[in-house]
Amino acid sequence: MNTASYHPVTAEIAAELRNVVGDRYVVYGDPERLEPFGHDEIAGPEYAHMPEALVRPKSAAEIARILKLANRERVPVTPRGAGSGLSGGAVPVHGGIVLCLDRMNRIIEIDPDNLTITVQPGVVTNEINERLKEYDLFYAGYPMSLETCFIGGNVAENAGGGKAVKYGVTGRYVTGLEVVTPIGETVRLGGKRVKDVTGYNLIQLMVGSEGTLGVFTEITLRLRPRPKASADLLCLFPTTEVAIGAVPRIMTGTGVVPTAIEFMDRTSMQAACEYLNESIPYREAGAMLLITVDGPDREAVERGYDRIGEACLEQGALEVYVADNATTSERIWKVRRSIAEAFKLVSPHQSLEDIVVPIAAIPEMAAGIEALAEEYGIAIPCYGHAGDGNLHATPVKAPEWSLEEWHERLPQLLTDLYRLAASLGGTISGEHGIGHKRKSFMPLVLAPAALDMMRAIKRALDPNGILNPGKIMDG
Amino acid sequence: MNTASYHPVTAEIAAELRNVVGDRYVVYGDPERLEPFGHDEIAGPEYAHMPEALVRPKSAAEIARILKLANRERVPVTPRGAGSGLSGGAVPVHGGIVLCLDRMNRIIEIDPDNLTITVQPGVVTNEINERLKEYDLFYAGYPMSLETCFIGGNVAENAGGGKAVKYGVTGRYVTGLEVVTPIGETVRLGGKRVKDVTGYNLIQLMVGSEGTLGVFTEITLRLRPRPKASADLLCLFPTTEVAIGAVPRIMTGTGVVPTAIEFMDRTSMQAACEYLNESIPYREAGAMLLITVDGPDREAVERGYDRIGEACLEQGALEVYVADNATTSERIWKVRRSIAEAFKLVSPHQSLEDIVVPIAAIPEMAAGIEALAEEYGIAIPCYGHAGDGNLHATPVKAPEWSLEEWHERLPQLLTDLYRLAASLGGTISGEHGIGHKRKSFMPLVLAPAALDMMRAIKRALDPNGILNPGKIMDG
Repeated sequence: MNTASYHPVTAEIAAELRNVVGDRYVVYGDPERLEPFGHDEIAGPEYAHMPEALVRPKSAAEIARILKLANRERVPVTPRGAGSGLSGGAVPVHGGIVLCLDRMNRIIEIDPDNLTITVQPGVVTNEINERLKEYDLFYAGYPMSLETCFIGGNVAENAGGGKAVKYGVTGRYVTGLEVVTPIGETVRLGGKRVKDVTGYNLIQLMVGSEGTLGVFTEITLRLRPRPKASADLLCLFPTTEVAIGAVPRIMTGTGVVPTAIEFMDRTSMQAACEYLNESIPYREAGAMLLITVDGPDREAVERGYDRIGEACLEQGALEVYVADNATTSERIWKVRRSIAEAFKLVSPHQSLEDIVVPIAAIPEMAAGIEALAEEYGIAIPCYGHAGDGNLHATPVKAPEWSLEEWHERLPQLLTDLYRLAASLGGTISGEHGIGHKRKSFMPLVLAPAALDMMRAIKRALDPNGILNPGKIMDG
Repeated sequence: MNTASYHPVTAEIAAELRNVVGDRYVVYGDPERLEPFGHDEIAGPEYAHMPEALVRPKSAAEIARILKLANRERVPVTPRGAGSGLSGGAVPVHGGIVLCLDRMNRIIEIDPDNLTITVQPGVVTNEINERLKEYDLFYAGYPMSLETCFIGGNVAENAGGGKAVKYGVTGRYVTGLEVVTPIGETVRLGGKRVKDVTGYNLIQLMVGSEGTLGVFTEITLRLRPRPKASADLLCLFPTTEVAIGAVPRIMTGTGVVPTAIEFMDRTSMQAACEYLNESIPYREAGAMLLITVDGPDREAVERGYDRIGEACLEQGALEVYVADNATTSERIWKVRRSIAEAFKLVSPHQSLEDIVVPIAAIPEMAAGIEALAEEYGIAIPCYGHAGDGNLHATPVKAPEWSLEEWHERLPQLLTDLYRLAASLGGTISGEHGIGHKRKSFMPLVLAPAALDMMRAIKRALDPNGILNPGKIMDG
């Protein structure tokens, strides 16, 4: 499907859309109100693109009608959650309709007997655990944007986050979906059962498909008993090298599976602390690991963090602080969660990256990032989910570079960064997704035959190419 | 693709196959030697179908050549592991070539620094953990046929097994695959990284696709630190109803996630014990739960099994025995693993089923199975992975029924059983797969639009329909 074959959203189509969702929930011909729906949280106006219409449906039935209309009229449709994405997944790069799911924000059912929760896609992720507290259950997803992002977006991007070392990423918890397919059929996949081999795993095909294969209208998530105890270790290291070097040892040498191992270099800690006007004892440190251990009781957690703390000290940590109350833990995690936001203020010209490598390759990857920074003469502060091998290296425009120079040199820098990750057995995105930001880099990590398989699946399920075109790969 | 459009394996094609893999590794025109490759472990000759040729390749390159040849000649190819499947996945229902992977049985690499193992598909599943012992690591897959089945078949069927309550099923551990696609391209998907959102999740699309979307030639599995302690509880209950009724309570009311909760009714226990000439103290019991708890140390395990044991007694267990040494544990588990085999000897005319329901619906499902047994006037002994809601109800031909009557009435019985599972939010297979055994029942649990999506994906990746046709659904 090439761009030329899409049609514009005409006044007649807009009228039909109003007819489907109601006048109030369509924006058309009003650039000021459409503008916020033309970008996500990627820094850089070059990644933005204005929609022609914004539509805010309330139900699967409305979405099905909109998608049928879009197929008939050959108008692209881009689903959007909270717009907190970091790869352009919700940006309507071919114009057309943005389908915003913010009105579909109900928690449909909490089922403690089956350990499931069923939600609409527009529920804010954090709300899920807030509501589950009274049931002593928890949902293990913990993206850093959890206070604003929508669960639908988490599923569409297969979000990772802070607790994936122990609990895995979003997809592990999705047992059921109601999906409106690109051609406007509503299908239910899975349900509350925890095992299911009834044909192809369409659920996991949908998870992480970045809104290109279907619009989720109901999501059933598997819950777990809430861990009865938890503690955080704040481990200060002299340098990035020493901190990152400790990670493989913690993962393989302690016999403990930590809930989280987050890495922050000095620049990241400093930026977030200043942004929050917070002081954590980082002055002496060149880098930091934030490590969480949880378990069924306090003794188990203590034994776990003792082992990990010892391993950190053996590996060269300067100091290990234990935070075993919720207030202190939340303070430290807030610093971690705020890094991306803080950086955007400090350095509006930057590229937040998301490479992932096998855990044993983390030290080499971190060293390679430092070498790239030196070679290009820019800063590449770095933080991320070190326990998963997932590092948010963030190249920042050198002050002496012009904007033109930045835009000229960034693609080569990213190519070098991605090639390095690939050469270490890694890939270009661990959790933020491909979107349109990274699609031109896909051949660096995927064979032509694998990309052809993805294109064939896309064509098979979306023959007119109307659902979120221009993402992941071109048709 | 309809059957009529497949071509036979001619002597010329057989010669070409010999040219690819070597004379010794092709069987053609020798019904006696082909016969074992015409069935799997399903009881009943009606599920068997003879291949025209057996080919035993040694490499991905050979498989790619065979699949290109098969596309050119329009000959169906059915991949086969150990032949221990229970839904006919490896049965060549349209004849053609059986591609047996038994010669691809190397453990390629154990990587303790990345917690991965990379294997060829023909490795016997049990061998993986035997080899990992010296590394203090373990692979969490534990299908009941682990002493004979191949890991490739486990991935193709997304096998479940005894430890899925805590650790999940096979797919959770597959981080990398080398696959020969239906059109004969060799692609690598994923690797040793634990997170990856580089486009569609082709790995999880391949997992459980029953050999219809690709032939796996290398499999990378994620490992875990070996649990330092483990114990089994053997809990005797007066009746199935009381035993099954305890399961949801154990799962949601103890705060402990057990490794396994296996259910065995009296008939199942008895059959397996007699088969093994084993005596476990079941004489008083109408039903039994076998519950495993593992953890990082003995204290944690003791606390866990104390809570679960108490819950069982509160729920009406007659007796709870603790087995905390490897020899006793293995004795009990061997009884559990031998049930299917024992039943086949006792009752050659049976249908081993694999329904799965949400955990809270297990009691209702078990009661429904007993009601069906009464209605049809046959025995339906029952056992399985109760902690996952996955029950192997096994309708057995009544002694007074003729074989004709059995074959006439079984489809209606299965329809009733599957409808009941579906009405409780369950489905027709939790781990054994659809194959050709259950494909006609798919519309009971999947909407036409979902089946159409599966067909569209199959056609997109296998345009000539040559790879394991007639499985999961018809084209």
